[in-house]
Amino acid sequence: VHTFEHGDSAASRGEYRHFMLKEIHEQPAVIAATLEGRLSGSHVLESSFGVGAKALFARVRQIHIVACGTSYHAGLVARYWLEKLAGIPTTVEVASEYRYREVVVPENTLFVTLSQSGETADTLAALRYAKGRAAGYLGALAICNVPGSSLTRESDLALMTQAGPEIGVASTKAFTTQLVALLLLTLALRRERGDARETALVQALRGLPALLEQALEMDGPIAELSEAFAEKHHALFLGRGTQFPIALEGALKLKEISYIHAEAYPAGELKHGPLALVDADMPVIAVAPNDELLEKLKSNLQEVRARGGELFVFADEGVGLTAAADLRVLHLPQIDEVLAPILYTLPLQLLSYHVAVLKGTDVDQPRNLAKSVTVE
Amino acid sequence: VHTFEHGDSAASRGEYRHFMLKEIHEQPAVIAATLEGRLSGSHVLESSFGVGAKALFARVRQIHIVACGTSYHAGLVARYWLEKLAGIPTTVEVASEYRYREVVVPENTLFVTLSQSGETADTLAALRYAKGRAAGYLGALAICNVPGSSLTRESDLALMTQAGPEIGVASTKAFTTQLVALLLLTLALRRERGDARETALVQALRGLPALLEQALEMDGPIAELSEAFAEKHHALFLGRGTQFPIALEGALKLKEISYIHAEAYPAGELKHGPLALVDADMPVIAVAPNDELLEKLKSNLQEVRARGGELFVFADEGVGLTAAADLRVLHLPQIDEVLAPILYTLPLQLLSYHVAVLKGTDVDQPRNLAKSVTVE
Repeated sequence: VHTFEHGDSAASRGEYRHFMLKEIHEQPAVIAATLEGRLSGSHVLESSFGVGAKALFARVRQIHIVACGTSYHAGLVARYWLEKLAGIPTTVEVASEYRYREVVVPENTLFVTLSQSGETADTLAALRYAKGRAAGYLGALAICNVPGSSLTRESDLALMTQAGPEIGVASTKAFTTQLVALLLLTLALRRERGDARETALVQALRGLPALLEQALEMDGPIAELSEAFAEKHHALFLGRGTQFPIALEGALKLKEISYIHAEAYPAGELKHGPLALVDADMPVIAVAPNDELLEKLKSNLQEVRARGGELFVFADEGVGLTAAADLRVLHLPQIDEVLAPILYTLPLQLLSYHVAVLKGTDVDQPRNLAKSVTVE
Repeated sequence: VHTFEHGDSAASRGEYRHFMLKEIHEQPAVIAATLEGRLSGSHVLESSFGVGAKALFARVRQIHIVACGTSYHAGLVARYWLEKLAGIPTTVEVASEYRYREVVVPENTLFVTLSQSGETADTLAALRYAKGRAAGYLGALAICNVPGSSLTRESDLALMTQAGPEIGVASTKAFTTQLVALLLLTLALRRERGDARETALVQALRGLPALLEQALEMDGPIAELSEAFAEKHHALFLGRGTQFPIALEGALKLKEISYIHAEAYPAGELKHGPLALVDADMPVIAVAPNDELLEKLKSNLQEVRARGGELFVFADEGVGLTAAADLRVLHLPQIDEVLAPILYTLPLQLLSYHVAVLKGTDVDQPRNLAKSVTVE
């Protein structure tokens, strides 16, 4: 297990060829750091979110999550968690849309922002917009990676992710630590505190860094797989439920650093249009499908196999998929389905990294992009 | 003005080379037909939605819209309308996601489905899922184009779009008549019935067919523009607010019939990743930006102009944009901003049509796709 100490090696790539690869490999350690001090036995400590969090959380009836880019994808995962586990209706919206429309805010809405830097211009503007029309809003929570940032200073509550400095422009460890923070929030918002479900999920969270280490051992097989993508100009990522936002994030990573036009769809939407695009030049990547999804997906893809459509599946080792010439399978360790989106993020990060290296792009500083988007 | 009589020529292309082109040109007439009998003076008649609609609408506190593909895009537009004009919190979700997760349903939620055929398998399954867990749901409304379809039979309320038979697999007139139906729903759900805003919007709706006729006169200029796309393999569509779903729909049309990998983003998200993709091979199409958006977009694109990035803008004739070598502008007639998404759909339909014709694809029957998706 890599140990992580903030500040000591943040500005150095150490043994790694790129900051992005270093940051991918730091994830077990920084996720352990993000959990540190936030759990007591089998319980999430509300005080992690700030003074008054417990009283405020007890009053939450709806949640509005606002973010941009990769952070928006973390919010989309949280929506599934918050509705399923905490029973709280949740909407997630990109900041540049939220701030320019007339949003209806039901009573007792918690306003949550996500941003690595805490300085993302549109997200900060959305927070100020929300504070300027207070009716409905109960308070604002910022989930951030930079202490003292504008977003944390201007919010009522804050949870700091402990990802340490992220140098690669394409966000990796900031994203997975946001997911962990959002799962802590979900558990803190549940009405049935300290029950068996919370105990089991806290247990699963404690075991997460070790599972992430296992996933990182896929580095070799994924480097090999990446050769199938280096000559492609397109890719389609599919997922369902909490894995749909992971498909979105996988596609975004491939876009950002390898300049391959990758797009994600909820798997069920494939037959409502994008299937027309699938041919030998458009590989399809499916993330962690359950058996039912996989059966449907395979039948949807049947007719395009004749056109040379290739399918790559990242799946639980228990799924029992048989690889074929047009179906390649990469297995991940078994994991509680709630935590699965965090685990499945890692092989997709590695895939985009290795494709970019093969293509010879500037991995840590992709063209046209800035690390923190402080313009609107 | 084309006149439209259901049934007389539905199975014939008449003077048109393809059903899709015929159906695009029918939109002024079928939208007039969809308004027919639903308006009384300057008022929307709730009775259009079925017996008991008025009493049920008075109790609505939240709305869940569920649909697939193109119909989902219509739902996304409606969300902006319902929150801004009727003040009702609205969520929109693809049916294959909604039905497989544990959705939280607040009290007095109206469940709305959208489907041209009324037989879309996932949408129908989502309706049955909702009816099976009744708590929270106030009732179900189907917006459909086929009378007697499963969706209308199993819903409490129904509003039929009067698009007539749609033969082209890529939906055109079914989409814009759904938008009109959703605007009627929005007006019927407003608490301030019969006020100046309703009068103005009903007036604008009555004038819509004539404006759509004007937009169809762009056919020649758009056919010319389409030559810039025929050799491309990618395109990026940008919009903001109600025009973001129109960008999604424009991208889907181009995907479906021309097999160009087109993707849509809310314009503000461009700098959070997809900007890395933009170069001479990736034209950017912006839909109806207001001046503020356009200024930001132009500065975002400044740095990629050196790479040969081209920008195509569909904008109000009053916007005062100056075309340049890397900026082409197509003007649309002035229109109430609420109705703008309906109008701006037409040039994007024509663009995808002309690109597909240039590419020689099977416009009315694109590869891999079925007209009604009755499998899951």
